[in-house]
Amino acid sequence: MYDTTLRDGTQGEGVSFSVTDKLRIAEKFDQFGIDYIEGGWPGSNPRDMAFFEEAKKLNLKHSKIAAFGSTRRANLTAEEDPQLKTLIDAGTPVVTIFGKTWLLHVTEVIRVKPEENLAMIEDSVRFLKSHGREVIYDAEHFYDGYVDSPEYAMQTLEAAVRGGADNLSLCDTNGGKLVSELQEITKAVVERFPEVSVGVHCHNDSGLGVALSLGGVDAGATLVQGTFNGYGERVGNANLTTIIPNIALKMGYPLNCTDHLKSTRELSMFIADLANLEHDNKAPFVGLSAFTHKGGAHADATKKVSYSYEHVDPTKVGNRQRVLVSDMAGRSSLLMKAQELGFDIDRNSPETKVIIDKLKELEYNGYEFESADGSLRLLLDRLTNKHKSHFEFEGYRVIVEKRSKDEKPVSEATIKVKVDGEPRYVVAEDPGPVGALDKALRVALGDAFPNLKKLALKDYKVRILDSKEGAEAKTRVLIESSDEHELWGTVGASNNIIEASWQAIRDAVEYKILLDDKDKE
Amino acid sequence: MYDTTLRDGTQGEGVSFSVTDKLRIAEKFDQFGIDYIEGGWPGSNPRDMAFFEEAKKLNLKHSKIAAFGSTRRANLTAEEDPQLKTLIDAGTPVVTIFGKTWLLHVTEVIRVKPEENLAMIEDSVRFLKSHGREVIYDAEHFYDGYVDSPEYAMQTLEAAVRGGADNLSLCDTNGGKLVSELQEITKAVVERFPEVSVGVHCHNDSGLGVALSLGGVDAGATLVQGTFNGYGERVGNANLTTIIPNIALKMGYPLNCTDHLKSTRELSMFIADLANLEHDNKAPFVGLSAFTHKGGAHADATKKVSYSYEHVDPTKVGNRQRVLVSDMAGRSSLLMKAQELGFDIDRNSPETKVIIDKLKELEYNGYEFESADGSLRLLLDRLTNKHKSHFEFEGYRVIVEKRSKDEKPVSEATIKVKVDGEPRYVVAEDPGPVGALDKALRVALGDAFPNLKKLALKDYKVRILDSKEGAEAKTRVLIESSDEHELWGTVGASNNIIEASWQAIRDAVEYKILLDDKDKE
Repeated sequence: MYDTTLRDGTQGEGVSFSVTDKLRIAEKFDQFGIDYIEGGWPGSNPRDMAFFEEAKKLNLKHSKIAAFGSTRRANLTAEEDPQLKTLIDAGTPVVTIFGKTWLLHVTEVIRVKPEENLAMIEDSVRFLKSHGREVIYDAEHFYDGYVDSPEYAMQTLEAAVRGGADNLSLCDTNGGKLVSELQEITKAVVERFPEVSVGVHCHNDSGLGVALSLGGVDAGATLVQGTFNGYGERVGNANLTTIIPNIALKMGYPLNCTDHLKSTRELSMFIADLANLEHDNKAPFVGLSAFTHKGGAHADATKKVSYSYEHVDPTKVGNRQRVLVSDMAGRSSLLMKAQELGFDIDRNSPETKVIIDKLKELEYNGYEFESADGSLRLLLDRLTNKHKSHFEFEGYRVIVEKRSKDEKPVSEATIKVKVDGEPRYVVAEDPGPVGALDKALRVALGDAFPNLKKLALKDYKVRILDSKEGAEAKTRVLIESSDEHELWGTVGASNNIIEASWQAIRDAVEYKILLDDKDKE
Repeated sequence: MYDTTLRDGTQGEGVSFSVTDKLRIAEKFDQFGIDYIEGGWPGSNPRDMAFFEEAKKLNLKHSKIAAFGSTRRANLTAEEDPQLKTLIDAGTPVVTIFGKTWLLHVTEVIRVKPEENLAMIEDSVRFLKSHGREVIYDAEHFYDGYVDSPEYAMQTLEAAVRGGADNLSLCDTNGGKLVSELQEITKAVVERFPEVSVGVHCHNDSGLGVALSLGGVDAGATLVQGTFNGYGERVGNANLTTIIPNIALKMGYPLNCTDHLKSTRELSMFIADLANLEHDNKAPFVGLSAFTHKGGAHADATKKVSYSYEHVDPTKVGNRQRVLVSDMAGRSSLLMKAQELGFDIDRNSPETKVIIDKLKELEYNGYEFESADGSLRLLLDRLTNKHKSHFEFEGYRVIVEKRSKDEKPVSEATIKVKVDGEPRYVVAEDPGPVGALDKALRVALGDAFPNLKKLALKDYKVRILDSKEGAEAKTRVLIESSDEHELWGTVGASNNIIEASWQAIRDAVEYKILLDDKDKE
């Protein structure tokens, strides 16, 4: 399993990850058992380079990080090529480079002679191998190129193999192939190159991204490239969130992810949260609706013979059966999360019922805890009477004022809290109201909790939940914070956007204080 | 092509059509060349029966309407069965009935003897044929049943054929089959029953709905059941919006829809509109993003050799190429929009350069005018000195206050404007700050512009543009407003969320006044 969510996935409209997001996702992929994580194209932008710098410090148990790039330029040697140099500088165990297969592209797009293109492939692979890298060669437009000229397409792969490539990944770059066509061509490559592993890299332009990938495996490919949630350019890359359960549960091939299959839904939602995209309810296996039964007949039969209307057991991918009407959504995955956070929760105790009811009410009111572990922890502390209050909140006031047409608005936030019974009443200013609240809270608590200096607000996301209600709409705010060691999410929800932001800020600060307390213990 | 959007499609969460919606869709399907339109299950609800009554009056040129139902009950003859009677009463040329294939369902769900199930199938088909109907037999759970007992599965089809069925449609009801498996079984059926046509009815639970349908065609099926936009229970039915272009453009089979393929995107959007669901930008072939190019290399190459990065010509399915590279691409589309709005703009005049520079600056600062025609119109008015100011803005102040932990926050907005030189200074209250600003502005202007009563704020969206900057992030607010006649969008952007909202509200109100002015002229 070769994931390129962090590189090809970010080509999708609206998908973008910060360096911290990428690091968090890489850690999750490692836990999930993804074999290769393509982290970015270090030559293309400084953010990707920063990721590779930071990634060196990650302590991954299973996954190998891959840097992505292209073959050398036409008029340089591999040693002179600055882009190949950045690939080495990225310091990853694996480098994936793409080269041209399709003669049309060779002569019309990059405009070099066919033989020069072969030399570019061979030289580049050999250069990377000489620096001790595992090299995956991505044959761009392989299938279209093969249809055009099977001889030349095979020559490009031969060049990569001569250079020492460890894997030949065949790309259906335009996503236009049909399954039978892709299988036939993949088979020809597998038979021609028994000495190297073959991979497939598919897109979903014909609605066949998953089928093409599985077809490739049937034809002998042993590496599958794709993205989580199918993120990617145009209609997206082959969706690993669907491919992995199909291979693990239906085709019966051994995968490292099989042991962690129960986290599939959670991981899919986590990545959607960080991308600030809505999770697709209709996603196969992991969507909220994937095992939802509506209509009397099905729902009844489902009760009678559970598997009679379900293609797999939903719990195997961390999902669950839902029968519309009663809505108990997400509950049990939250209980699992609570156990992860160290809460000893008995599913059947009356205390648990109280927690479930409270979570249900909060979710109904717009909260969402999948990526807000900070808020969930604080909430569970409160519900189980383990909460140690560090400050008492008394009140806040936010003023946004614009005195004339051409003036910039100013924001002022006043906060009243008690720390150890002692009142603090402070005020702070900022261009925006949320920034002002954040500042004021830090001023109020700064003396008592000097470590708050190390708290950084990394990310601020707003989602209008029922936008058709106009300005009365319910608003959810997700904030991501960090200190030197940890990264956590907090959530707020209200029909007042300032209040929703306040809740998320307050939780972020309280969670930081809790962490410091724990360190002292 | 057998469409069941109007029946199986409505099993999808959030999908529901009125009788009028269904009639309008049926007419569009007819124009598009769909062969069979499954309109509903007349026995299951009065709305479906009303549709069949009205559908008799439709003057369809090509499509045949099908009524859907089940085989007779176990303890009645076909003639006595009320549900079969409603199928005849529906008065459609085609009736589709489903029966059980899977022994598990026969014995555990409907609880009859296997032989009785065979008699139910045969009797029901014969009864419908005796009333002159074309009969399609839907073999529910065919593939799962076949895997369980190939003999019994074949016996159910034999019963349908003895009854006189015109078509055997094999259903992968749970959507769990892999392509190769489905193909093998479909082939066995096609070979066994050379005298009747065979169809496939697939679902997308494994992300393979399209691939399974195409696989069925490869195996000899000549009828494909599916829904537009893939609507349907759980993750949806096989998506005809994807299947049709694949068969027409790639597999090369003749379809009646082929002549109308250019309407695919339009029809897909029409159905989404009537279902009141957002059209999926990432839908293969028909989504807004399906032929969108991002990233320098691809976009450049696309210019050079258009088909080098496109699997089909987008215009064939009524879609178009979109390039998201330089902000200049958006620029020329904005100029086009300006011309639509009635501005006579010469691309090369110095005045146009001023406008382009201003738009460029505003987009850099987070504004976006694609869906904010109201704000664009006001801006162009201002830049071309055509703007007639209806009120002068002097200042605002918004206060959000929460007095204690358990109290709800209140919001108060103060606004100072001049109308015809006369100052108005008003205040209003609301749960949220944006609602309070909206109210205050209406109070301030209400006397002078009584038509503002008819202005409704329909939609309020917030996007954090650089969320990684934390609370300092730039925020874009899009508001959609309407009166009885028109719908328009306005935009605001600022690093202060209140200010961004204010700008969008102010433009919404000003645009409404402008519309009323025009009416008076």
